[in-house]
Amino acid sequence: MANADRVDIVEVGPRDGFQPIVPFIATETKIDLVHRLYDAGLRRIEATAFVSDRAIPQLSDAGRVLKAAEELPDLDVQVLVPNRRYCDRAVEAGAKHVAYVLSVSEKHNMNNVRRTPADSVEEYRGLVAGLPVDVAVRLNLATAFDCPFDGPVSVDAAIALLEPLLAARSNVEVALCDTTGRVTPDRVSALFQVAQARFAASETVWAFHGHDTYGVGVANVLAAYAAGVRVMDASFGGLGGCPFAPGATGNVATEDVVWTLDGMGISTGIDLAKLLAVAEDAAELPGALIGGRVRDALRGARSRDIVAVTQ
Amino acid sequence: MANADRVDIVEVGPRDGFQPIVPFIATETKIDLVHRLYDAGLRRIEATAFVSDRAIPQLSDAGRVLKAAEELPDLDVQVLVPNRRYCDRAVEAGAKHVAYVLSVSEKHNMNNVRRTPADSVEEYRGLVAGLPVDVAVRLNLATAFDCPFDGPVSVDAAIALLEPLLAARSNVEVALCDTTGRVTPDRVSALFQVAQARFAASETVWAFHGHDTYGVGVANVLAAYAAGVRVMDASFGGLGGCPFAPGATGNVATEDVVWTLDGMGISTGIDLAKLLAVAEDAAELPGALIGGRVRDALRGARSRDIVAVTQ
Repeated sequence: MANADRVDIVEVGPRDGFQPIVPFIATETKIDLVHRLYDAGLRRIEATAFVSDRAIPQLSDAGRVLKAAEELPDLDVQVLVPNRRYCDRAVEAGAKHVAYVLSVSEKHNMNNVRRTPADSVEEYRGLVAGLPVDVAVRLNLATAFDCPFDGPVSVDAAIALLEPLLAARSNVEVALCDTTGRVTPDRVSALFQVAQARFAASETVWAFHGHDTYGVGVANVLAAYAAGVRVMDASFGGLGGCPFAPGATGNVATEDVVWTLDGMGISTGIDLAKLLAVAEDAAELPGALIGGRVRDALRGARSRDIVAVTQ
Repeated sequence: MANADRVDIVEVGPRDGFQPIVPFIATETKIDLVHRLYDAGLRRIEATAFVSDRAIPQLSDAGRVLKAAEELPDLDVQVLVPNRRYCDRAVEAGAKHVAYVLSVSEKHNMNNVRRTPADSVEEYRGLVAGLPVDVAVRLNLATAFDCPFDGPVSVDAAIALLEPLLAARSNVEVALCDTTGRVTPDRVSALFQVAQARFAASETVWAFHGHDTYGVGVANVLAAYAAGVRVMDASFGGLGGCPFAPGATGNVATEDVVWTLDGMGISTGIDLAKLLAVAEDAAELPGALIGGRVRDALRGARSRDIVAVTQ
């Protein structure tokens, strides 16, 4: 992961992208899309979440999706868990990589997981203490830069929350998440630089999770890259818009990130043509909230042979 | 323009954005939009082009639009001219700032202005020789990075074409244009660095003109900024998609650039709320090819108060 010319993309579409889709996606369809993402070269996929079926009915087939994904050779299958109880269920179901989420912002954490950030830290301590040694941990630090309720989050606040978390367990991957899409590249860069320096001894692997709501999704990924980050979350088809925010697009599109990194000579191991084919199908899912530019741009490429006075 | 915390945006929507719109936009509507862009704080506007009415009927009212725009105090009104003949017409009509366009790529130049790049250089020499001293010159170097027909353009090719152009007249502004939207930030940075070093003695002001077709529009603007460029072209509403490339979005949206620079504490002198209002109206123009993210994101902002398990 420290290779300067290599970025590992964590495909979060099957979890973060499917989650807000209201019409139920057949389990077979989910599994087929995971297979095709794998076939496109993705080797890290957040396949589902173990959460309340009542809260998120779309992911009520988590066990089956996880099982199918775990059968793919060398695929690192990550599943989201909101608390220790659901983490236990995920591990019982065969999860080898769990992602725990908490927010820097108190309001967002209360809204998201119904407890204070301090209580989420306690929950995390118990969670990692009870975890089998062969289960990997990803920490998603939501609202690391900006909160939908309270606006900008300070570097100090994010660092302060990371202190007890990184003390609780070493050798985790921490994703600093731009939950709102409102962060700008200068602030992405600043927080990663401070965090990497502050926690240099912890062997933390740093990751960036960004949204493209304001058109700076790729710019923020590149800012994270420039700051040394080599693990990026992205969602095929740009899936993941919030159903309660009309017009707000979601996660940065995997195909936009791959297209850009390809252009910069940075390897992702992903076949863009195969990825685009599966992203096109994902974008056609009933109720899908889609984003990204590259799908549209390359669809029209063949007819782009007539120009007027252009520059 | 050398202020580190200030970017001058050249609003090219009234020319580059209106040009591909097929239904004629009433001259009064064009003038009203220019007035409102001015009211939002824009002080450089590419208001129209003096070109063949037959080739681009949409801009056949260039004289009237120019005259109206020139009445606005302290507004730097730029008009595009494809050759000396139309440049003369523009100056006769009162133009104080002409933008001449030629392409590094021979195929694109042939397609765009029906002559070789070498012939375009000759045309430019004649054009600037005959120009009144009080008329400012902008040079738009199209396909400076990439050609829709021939793919990537080398730094050497762009520099080689700039040599005779910058020798023909000093004190011009040169926009290096990403015509296809396919350049990545690393290459934006590289060409500007080489060009600025090579022509340091020419007192050239450098500008960047980019498209957002592949989602890297803002990232490329920021790469140009990081390379020292302080003049950026952009189009309100992201107007400017090519009508022959379905789904291809056009120029980077002015509101996306302003939103990002605002977030980074870089001044543009533009009132985002006012700009968004006029961008919304531009996006509603019949036949408009629109882009950008910020319009949609801020339209939905009020309802973004419900979240599920998000990060």
